[in-house]
Amino acid sequence: MTTHDQSHQRRVAIAGASGYTGVELLRFLVQHPAARVVALTAETHAHQPIGQVFPNLTGFVDLACRPLDAAALAGEAEFVFLALPHKTSMAVAAALIERGVRVLDLSADFRLKDATAYPTWYGFEHTAPALLATAVYGLPELHRDAIASARLVAVPGCYPTSAILGLAPVVAEGLVDPETIVVDSISGVSGAGRRPELPTHYSEVNESLKAYGVARHRHTPEIEQELSRIAGRPVTVTFTPHLAPLTRGILTTITARLTRPERTADLVAVYRDFYRERPFVRVLDEGRLPETKHVLHSNLCDIGLVSDARTGRVVVVSAIDNLAKGASGQAVQCFNLMAGLDERAALWIPGLFP
Amino acid sequence: MTTHDQSHQRRVAIAGASGYTGVELLRFLVQHPAARVVALTAETHAHQPIGQVFPNLTGFVDLACRPLDAAALAGEAEFVFLALPHKTSMAVAAALIERGVRVLDLSADFRLKDATAYPTWYGFEHTAPALLATAVYGLPELHRDAIASARLVAVPGCYPTSAILGLAPVVAEGLVDPETIVVDSISGVSGAGRRPELPTHYSEVNESLKAYGVARHRHTPEIEQELSRIAGRPVTVTFTPHLAPLTRGILTTITARLTRPERTADLVAVYRDFYRERPFVRVLDEGRLPETKHVLHSNLCDIGLVSDARTGRVVVVSAIDNLAKGASGQAVQCFNLMAGLDERAALWIPGLFP
Amino acid sequence: MTTHDQSHQRRVAIAGASGYTGVELLRFLVQHPAARVVALTAETHAHQPIGQVFPNLTGFVDLACRPLDAAALAGEAEFVFLALPHKTSMAVAAALIERGVRVLDLSADFRLKDATAYPTWYGFEHTAPALLATAVYGLPELHRDAIASARLVAVPGCYPTSAILGLAPVVAEGLVDPETIVVDSISGVSGAGRRPELPTHYSEVNESLKAYGVARHRHTPEIEQELSRIAGRPVTVTFTPHLAPLTRGILTTITARLTRPERTADLVAVYRDFYRERPFVRVLDEGRLPETKHVLHSNLCDIGLVSDARTGRVVVVSAIDNLAKGASGQAVQCFNLMAGLDERAALWIPGLFP
Amino acid sequence: MTTHDQSHQRRVAIAGASGYTGVELLRFLVQHPAARVVALTAETHAHQPIGQVFPNLTGFVDLACRPLDAAALAGEAEFVFLALPHKTSMAVAAALIERGVRVLDLSADFRLKDATAYPTWYGFEHTAPALLATAVYGLPELHRDAIASARLVAVPGCYPTSAILGLAPVVAEGLVDPETIVVDSISGVSGAGRRPELPTHYSEVNESLKAYGVARHRHTPEIEQELSRIAGRPVTVTFTPHLAPLTRGILTTITARLTRPERTADLVAVYRDFYRERPFVRVLDEGRLPETKHVLHSNLCDIGLVSDARTGRVVVVSAIDNLAKGASGQAVQCFNLMAGLDERAALWIPGLFP
Repeated sequence: MTTHDQSHQRRVAIAGASGYTGVELLRFLVQHPAARVVALTAETHAHQPIGQVFPNLTGFVDLACRPLDAAALAGEAEFVFLALPHKTSMAVAAALIERGVRVLDLSADFRLKDATAYPTWYGFEHTAPALLATAVYGLPELHRDAIASARLVAVPGCYPTSAILGLAPVVAEGLVDPETIVVDSISGVSGAGRRPELPTHYSEVNESLKAYGVARHRHTPEIEQELSRIAGRPVTVTFTPHLAPLTRGILTTITARLTRPERTADLVAVYRDFYRERPFVRVLDEGRLPETKHVLHSNLCDIGLVSDARTGRVVVVSAIDNLAKGASGQAVQCFNLMAGLDERAALWIPGLFP
Repeated sequence: MTTHDQSHQRRVAIAGASGYTGVELLRFLVQHPAARVVALTAETHAHQPIGQVFPNLTGFVDLACRPLDAAALAGEAEFVFLALPHKTSMAVAAALIERGVRVLDLSADFRLKDATAYPTWYGFEHTAPALLATAVYGLPELHRDAIASARLVAVPGCYPTSAILGLAPVVAEGLVDPETIVVDSISGVSGAGRRPELPTHYSEVNESLKAYGVARHRHTPEIEQELSRIAGRPVTVTFTPHLAPLTRGILTTITARLTRPERTADLVAVYRDFYRERPFVRVLDEGRLPETKHVLHSNLCDIGLVSDARTGRVVVVSAIDNLAKGASGQAVQCFNLMAGLDERAALWIPGLFP
Repeated sequence: MTTHDQSHQRRVAIAGASGYTGVELLRFLVQHPAARVVALTAETHAHQPIGQVFPNLTGFVDLACRPLDAAALAGEAEFVFLALPHKTSMAVAAALIERGVRVLDLSADFRLKDATAYPTWYGFEHTAPALLATAVYGLPELHRDAIASARLVAVPGCYPTSAILGLAPVVAEGLVDPETIVVDSISGVSGAGRRPELPTHYSEVNESLKAYGVARHRHTPEIEQELSRIAGRPVTVTFTPHLAPLTRGILTTITARLTRPERTADLVAVYRDFYRERPFVRVLDEGRLPETKHVLHSNLCDIGLVSDARTGRVVVVSAIDNLAKGASGQAVQCFNLMAGLDERAALWIPGLFP
Repeated sequence: MTTHDQSHQRRVAIAGASGYTGVELLRFLVQHPAARVVALTAETHAHQPIGQVFPNLTGFVDLACRPLDAAALAGEAEFVFLALPHKTSMAVAAALIERGVRVLDLSADFRLKDATAYPTWYGFEHTAPALLATAVYGLPELHRDAIASARLVAVPGCYPTSAILGLAPVVAEGLVDPETIVVDSISGVSGAGRRPELPTHYSEVNESLKAYGVARHRHTPEIEQELSRIAGRPVTVTFTPHLAPLTRGILTTITARLTRPERTADLVAVYRDFYRERPFVRVLDEGRLPETKHVLHSNLCDIGLVSDARTGRVVVVSAIDNLAKGASGQAVQCFNLMAGLDERAALWIPGLFP
C-alpha cells in the first residue's frame, strides 16, 4: 500500500529466499520505506512465485524465485542478503563483492576472524580467507560504525547475539572472571531451519526438552571471539544450547563469578550505561526478568540480571526473537546502518504480545 | 521513532487497555501514521504505566492507565476504542457519543439489532436500545460506507468475522440452502481474554481439544443476523466453537448444501468477484486451503473452498487472527474508514510466518 | 519386572515397529500379562535394537528390528500386528494367514468391503480381494464376536473410530436423517506418522490450524460403510479433517438433523443403552462435553452430546487418543478378544491428565 | 478391572487430591496391585466425586472428596500421601504420625534438616522441628533403606530430584569442584500447580520462555543439603529454574569444573556403577543425551553427560517427568519400599512416546 518515493529506495536482493530467514527478511523489507526488493533466488523453488513458497506473502511481494547468478544479481541490486547454508555463502559473497555489491551474509562463513577455526568447528577449509579480514561482525550494538562503512557484514548467529549482548557490559568492565562463564540457551525450533528432519518433526519436538551440541556447538567460537575482543584477554565459555517446543525465541541464561561484590542495582546501571543509544536493547528494572514473548517478532533484546550475594555470582538473562534480532531483523538493522538510514527503519515495532 | 506530522493525527483513546484486545490495539496504533494515543483506561491497573502491564510495549507507549471517566476522555480524544467487557460498554458508549466522541466498541453490546436478543443470548437487558439502531456493524467488507460515517461502530466478534466472510458470497448469490449451514470453528486461547481461569490454565488447555458453548454460543445470533440480511430471508446456522492449544488464530469450516451443482473454480470466481477491492480478503486458488499461520498477527482473512460433487455440498474454510482481523485489527480498519484514511493504514502487513 | 507365567502368554510380533503405531503397540504389549513380544520388523532400522529407535523403550524391550520375512514370523508368532503402510500390508497379511498366523492389520488394506473402492479412494488395485470378505472390521464396540473368532482383523482408522462411535447409536435408532450428517474432526499431528515432511515440520504446524483432504479424505468410505451397515440404508457424510498443534488426540464434532425432537437427556440415555457393557466408551452426563486430554494415552472414547431444539439438530462430540483407541490400543483390544482374554487386559488405564 | 486379592492391599489415602500431584498419585494407585485407595480429601471440592474434579478418572475411582480430618483418616488408612501446600502439611503430618499412620509428604515441609532454613527460604517458622530429624528425604536412589523403615518421608521437589541424581556420582567421587556448580533447569508448566494465575495462563506462557526465582528459588537449599551430605563438605550451587511451554517434563543441565581430566566414557562408567540396581535411573551411552519425551509419564530419570576437555568442565543433563519421578511417581516408589514391595510396583512403565 505504501507508495514510497522509489527514487530514494535502495535496490536489494535476497539469495536463499525460501528458508525462514528469507521469509523473515521479506517481512521487514516489504514494509521498508527505503528499500525495494528486486530479486529473490532459491534453487529448490526456482521459477516459483514467492507467494506459493510462502502463502503469507501473497499480495505483498510479486516476485518469482530464480536460480542464483551472482553476475545478474550484481546488475540489479546494490545490497544482497545471503540467506544461504554455511559453506555455500563464501563463494557467492566473494563474487558479489568483486562486482561492487555490498553483502549481508547471514551464514557463519565470515563470522570468525581466524580462518583455522573453520576446519575445527565447521569441518571445512575457508576458501576466501582474505575476505575474513575485511568482514565486519554485524552486531550493531558493538560495531555500529564499522558496519556503516562495511562492504561485507557477517550477521551474527542467534545464540551469540543473545550471549554477547548479555555479557558485553560486565566483560568490558572486568566485573566477571572470564574463566567462570557458563552460558545455557534455550531456543525455539525455527532456528533449525525449514528442511524437514526427524529432530524437528512435530511429534518428536512437541512436549519435549533436550540439550544438543554439548561442548561442540558452532556458535561457541563466535561468542568467545567477541568476548575476548571486548575483554582484551582470552575468554572461554561453556555453552550449552537447548531446544524447547516453541517456534520462535531464544532465552539465554549466563552465570559467572563476580570479581567483586556488586549490587543488582549497580549492575543494572552498568548495563544501561553500556547500552545508552542502543535502542533495541532494553535493560530491565531490578526485580524484572525478560520473557521471550515480550520481544516476539521484534528486533528487541531484553536483558535482566540478578547479583547473587550468597554465591558471589551474577546471573544475566537475555531474550530475543531468533529469526528477528537473531537473524533477519539484525541483518536489516545492519543494512540500515550501511545505507545511512535510521537504525530503526522498518524495525521499530514492539514485541507482539500475546 | 517515526515522527509523523502530529497536526494531522487523530487523537484516540482506549478504554479497557489492559486486556489482549487492548495490547493489540496499541500494537497497531503506536505505529499508525495518522493516530496518536492520548489516553488509556484500566480499572485493575489504574495509575500503572502501560509498559508494566505489558512489558512488550516498554519504550513504545509512555502512558499510564487511569480509571475510566467518560467526560475526561471526551475532552481529549476524538475517537475512543472500547475494549471493555460485555454489558459494561453500553453506558460508556452512550456517555461518549453524547459528548461528540466517535466510538468503536469491541464488545457485543451494539452488534445485535434486535434488543430482545440480549436477554436471550447474553442474559441482560439492553439499556441503550436507541443506540442499537444507529450502530453500524463494523465488518468493512460488508458495510464500508456506513462505517465511514458512523458515530458508533460495533466491531464484530472473532468467530462471526470468519463465518460471515466465509459465507457472504454464496449466501448473497443464493448458492446454498440457508437451512443446511453448519459452522464449526476452532480458536486459539487468547480469544478467552487475559483473566486467569481454570479452562484457560496452561496445563488444562495444552495438548487438548474441546468443543464448548454448543447450541448456545453468543456469537450465533450475530452470524445469523448478518447472513439473513444478506440473504433477504431468515438464515439459521448450527455453530460449534472449539478450543485448540495455540494462542492466536481462528479456522472456520463451513458446510452447506449447494442449491445447484457448481464447480470449485466457479465458486472461487464468485468469491473473488464479491471481494474485489476488499484488500484484506484473499481468496485462494482452487486446490489451496488456508492455514491460520499464513495470517498470523495480520488483518488478513484467507478463504479457500471445495465443491464436493459427491455429496452436493460446498466446504468453505476461512482463517483469521482472532485478535487482529477478529478484533483489534478490524477496529483499526474501521477507524481508518471513519477517519477518511486508507483502509490499510498501519494494517498492511503480511502474516508473520513462521 | 512383572514375571508373568510365560506358558500362558501368546507369542506376538509387530511388523513395522519403527513408526508411532509400533512404539504405541509396544507400550501396551510390554506390560501385557498374557502376551510376549517375540519379534519386531522394520526395514529402515533393520538390526538396530528397538531401544535405539525409541529410547523411551530402553530397559523394557530387548529386541532388535529385523527385515520382514513372513515365513520366519509365522514360525515364531501366533499373532502378528501389521503396522505397515497402506498397500504394503495386503501381501504380508495374505502370506501370514496362509501360514496359520492370526493377523491384526493397522493399515487400511482390509477395512473396505468393496474392492472397487480401493482404486477410487486409495489409488491402487486390491491384490487380495478374497481376504476382504473374511476380514473383520476391528471396532470391538460393534463387532466383538466376529473379532473374537477372526483370522484377519482390519483395525479402523483413527477418524472413523471417533466418527462411527459418535454416530452409531442415533443411526441405529433412526434418530438422524442420514443425508444431513456433517463430520468435522480435529487431530493431533502424530496421526501423520513419523516420516519428516514439510506439513509436519514443527515450525509449520505449531501455532497453526488447517483443514486438509476436504471432500476426498480416505477415511470417508470407511465411515460410510459402517454407518450404512448400521442404518440398513446408504449413509453419506461430509467429512472434513483438521490439523491442530498437539501430538495426540482426535476430537470429532458431528452435526445432523434429528428425525424428531429429542431432549438431550433422552439421547444420552440412548447412547448409554447402546454402549452398555462396552467399557471403553464413556457417555458423559448431560451438560458435559469431552476433552481429548481426559482420554490422553488411554483406550477410552468419551462422548457428549447436545440436542439443539432451535435448529432441530443434534451435535455429538467424541474424543479419543488417535494412537491408542485410534490405532494401537484398539488393536490390542482386538487381540484380547481374539485371544479369549478380558477386553481390558493391559488397556485399563485412565486418561493421563494433565 | 484388575481384581487383586484385597487382603494383601495396603489401605492408602490422599490428602489434597484435587491438585495435579493428586491426580497423578491416583493414576498410579488405581492400578497398584498392593494398594487400595480408601479416602480422598480436598477442601475446595469437598463432597464432589473425584470423577467430576478429574473427568479422566471417571470409571476408575469411585470416591468423593471430603474435608481433611486427621483422626478419621488415621482410622482408615495405613499410609497417607500429603499433596498439600507448603506450610499446611506440617500439622497434618504430625497429627497423622501421632496416630500411627505412615506419611508420605509431597510438600517441602520436611525436606530440610535445618529448621532455621524455613524462615529464610520459605518465610515461615517450622512448627514441628522434632519431626524434621526423623523425616527421611525420599529419594530412593540415595536413601532406600531409610525410606523402607521411615514413618515420615519427605518426597523431594521436582528440580532437586533431577539435580541431585545428575550430580550425586561425581560429587560422591570428588570429581567436580563443589564451588563451581551451575544448575540450569527447564520445567513444564504443570509444576506450578492447578490454581489459575496470570503466570500460568495459557496465552502468557505459550510460545514463551523465561527464568524465574533467580538466586532465591526454594529448591536450592534442598539440592545443597543432599549434595553436601554426599560430598562430606559444603556444596553451593547457583540454581536457575526456567519455564517453557510444555505441560510435563524437567530437563536439568549441570556444569561444573572437573578436578582432573576425565574422558566421557569413564564418567559414564562412574554413573553406571553408582546407579547399579537403581532401576529408574538410565545412564545413557556416550554420545547420547536425554530428552524429556523419553521419560514422559514415567518414573524414569535419564542421564547423559559430556566431558569438555577444552574447558575442563563436565556437562551433565538429566530428564524426568516432573509430576511422576519429580513428585507422585517418586512418592509411590517410596511407598513401595515402605510397604516392603518391589520398588517398581505399579511404576514399571516406559516413557510414553511420542
